[in-house]
Amino acid sequence: MDMERPLYIPVILGTARKGRASENVARFMLGEVGKREGVETELIDIRDLDLPFDDEGEAIKDVRFSGQMSRADALVVVVPEYNHGYPGLLKHALDTNLKEYIHKAVGVCGVSAGGFGGVRVVQGLLPVLRELGLVTIFWDMNFAAAHKLFDESGALLERSYVRRADQFLKELIWMAKVLRHGREKVSLG
Amino acid sequence: MDMERPLYIPVILGTARKGRASENVARFMLGEVGKREGVETELIDIRDLDLPFDDEGEAIKDVRFSGQMSRADALVVVVPEYNHGYPGLLKHALDTNLKEYIHKAVGVCGVSAGGFGGVRVVQGLLPVLRELGLVTIFWDMNFAAAHKLFDESGALLERSYVRRADQFLKELIWMAKVLRHGREKVSLG
Amino acid sequence: MDMERPLYIPVILGTARKGRASENVARFMLGEVGKREGVETELIDIRDLDLPFDDEGEAIKDVRFSGQMSRADALVVVVPEYNHGYPGLLKHALDTNLKEYIHKAVGVCGVSAGGFGGVRVVQGLLPVLRELGLVTIFWDMNFAAAHKLFDESGALLERSYVRRADQFLKELIWMAKVLRHGREKVSLG
Amino acid sequence: MDMERPLYIPVILGTARKGRASENVARFMLGEVGKREGVETELIDIRDLDLPFDDEGEAIKDVRFSGQMSRADALVVVVPEYNHGYPGLLKHALDTNLKEYIHKAVGVCGVSAGGFGGVRVVQGLLPVLRELGLVTIFWDMNFAAAHKLFDESGALLERSYVRRADQFLKELIWMAKVLRHGREKVSLG
Repeated sequence: MDMERPLYIPVILGTARKGRASENVARFMLGEVGKREGVETELIDIRDLDLPFDDEGEAIKDVRFSGQMSRADALVVVVPEYNHGYPGLLKHALDTNLKEYIHKAVGVCGVSAGGFGGVRVVQGLLPVLRELGLVTIFWDMNFAAAHKLFDESGALLERSYVRRADQFLKELIWMAKVLRHGREKVSLG
Repeated sequence: MDMERPLYIPVILGTARKGRASENVARFMLGEVGKREGVETELIDIRDLDLPFDDEGEAIKDVRFSGQMSRADALVVVVPEYNHGYPGLLKHALDTNLKEYIHKAVGVCGVSAGGFGGVRVVQGLLPVLRELGLVTIFWDMNFAAAHKLFDESGALLERSYVRRADQFLKELIWMAKVLRHGREKVSLG
Repeated sequence: MDMERPLYIPVILGTARKGRASENVARFMLGEVGKREGVETELIDIRDLDLPFDDEGEAIKDVRFSGQMSRADALVVVVPEYNHGYPGLLKHALDTNLKEYIHKAVGVCGVSAGGFGGVRVVQGLLPVLRELGLVTIFWDMNFAAAHKLFDESGALLERSYVRRADQFLKELIWMAKVLRHGREKVSLG
Repeated sequence: MDMERPLYIPVILGTARKGRASENVARFMLGEVGKREGVETELIDIRDLDLPFDDEGEAIKDVRFSGQMSRADALVVVVPEYNHGYPGLLKHALDTNLKEYIHKAVGVCGVSAGGFGGVRVVQGLLPVLRELGLVTIFWDMNFAAAHKLFDESGALLERSYVRRADQFLKELIWMAKVLRHGREKVSLG
């Protein structure tokens, strides 16, 4: 593996809801990913995608988003839990690509207003992410009571998340490197 | 229970994808529901809902859709399986209501291009429907290879689905009646 | 509905693990159920079932357990989360009955050593309970950090669970009454 | 990666039910895995494990089974669907190990008496396998109407499964090689 070429690990902000606490979470994760040496990142806000809503699936690809997914070695998905499931707009966006995701790593950051940190939306996403060809790592981030975790400037108030993010990103970067090696060096069959 | 007041059981067509096979499925189910005595129905096509996409949840209620959900005794949800999950636009629509659904019945009709009849999207919807307060019956409809099940006029080619729909609707109507009795006659605590 | 006949709502203790915190949870729930007027209960400890392990399913029914399930109007299932799923022994026990469960209510009490109160095992049980014909209510109990919630005598230290149990049992008893009415008074088709 | 050391990919037969169709499935898969060059395999029948049932988890490890899991590079899990979930005895067995599974590949072969090939038990296993540290590949095998797929001698009657097994095993072996490289050559953080 050419270790000089950086890993590209964008952070997807998976809700367009007004007042979304997930935006602070995504910015925090973006900062944490950005600190890792040899990793490039950027924020992909699903609010900014240019997706039509009168059709679904690969027919409505956003060229820029598909390019980002093609280039990605791993994804950080920040996703609030709505009624124990994923936001419709995130699924609408994810469904626009297929082969772009294959054999890449993904780590999920669940966000909730209540106390369980989006654990249920992580569970709900597992079959979807797998079918897309992504490998979901077995560390998650869980941001419970997310509106209280950040101050007005968006700065994180609860420092334990920094340590947790460190473990989460170690695992995600490990899986990203391993799968990139696989994609580039190990033949299928 | 005042049995002279008909049950209202609309059929939700849960995808806006162009060329959707689910439209034939929804029209078939609409016809089957409509044959039942004492039941009123209509088709609710999520393509026709007036929902914004720059926000999510109860903030973006469509007044007509919310009225239909309030009035409903049960729902038939026709839903294709996209990447082993539910269509984003269906979830976007479902998330716009909450108390409208409570203690009502729902039956799910999974639709797939392949051989498993949307079994996985039914599984994926279970926690969401439960959190919305709906009771999912334990009969499903599963329309596998859905593009081949109807002729060009939209008529069903495979008659076994009529028998299956009969069992499915018996159970759904039973649950709709039972829960209506509960809502109207049994006090909570 | 003959309201003079009490509801029978046993509490199933769904693990045989030595040192199980779930036993305190089950005894607490048993006490709470037992306080409700017009409700009979008892503890069913899966450790005490006489089930063989060289076969599975209805072939290995325990007569007493099947009788309890037949008689039950609703179940309280106390279940720890093991590796984000249900304990094998609980599933082994549940699978020994089928028609005994149909059109009855169930409420789930998740138990965890960690912070999420067994939310994931509840999600994992939903499709199973549905297939068994049970109706899972949309209130759960979630006992997080369960080893710290009780003193050495098994008395609950955290009183907020009493209020939560009250809401949970109101919903469960409502559903038990409603479904009993359905089983006894509403014909299927 | 030392390609001369063979991959070890055992096949787990995940039910003890008498008359299990899954045994034929497991023997078929064992034969298919065994044909691959550079792969060693064997059948692990959960009926043969020496596990107590008065406790659960790592406390009741079977030394031989834990050794097999430690040595494994990947697993093929053959699992029937019981009431839309996994067999209790399989979960009881899986829960006895933890670190033995980490960063290894798993492919799931669902088995059903009915028409959906165990699709639902695969979905149900995903969160469990992930928590155990396993990476579930995105190809499955689905043996529908499993009692009719084999003749009396246990020979497969439906040849399409051979082609499917070829694709499934290509993916599983790819993932096994890639993750072994990762375990041996890529440091975590």
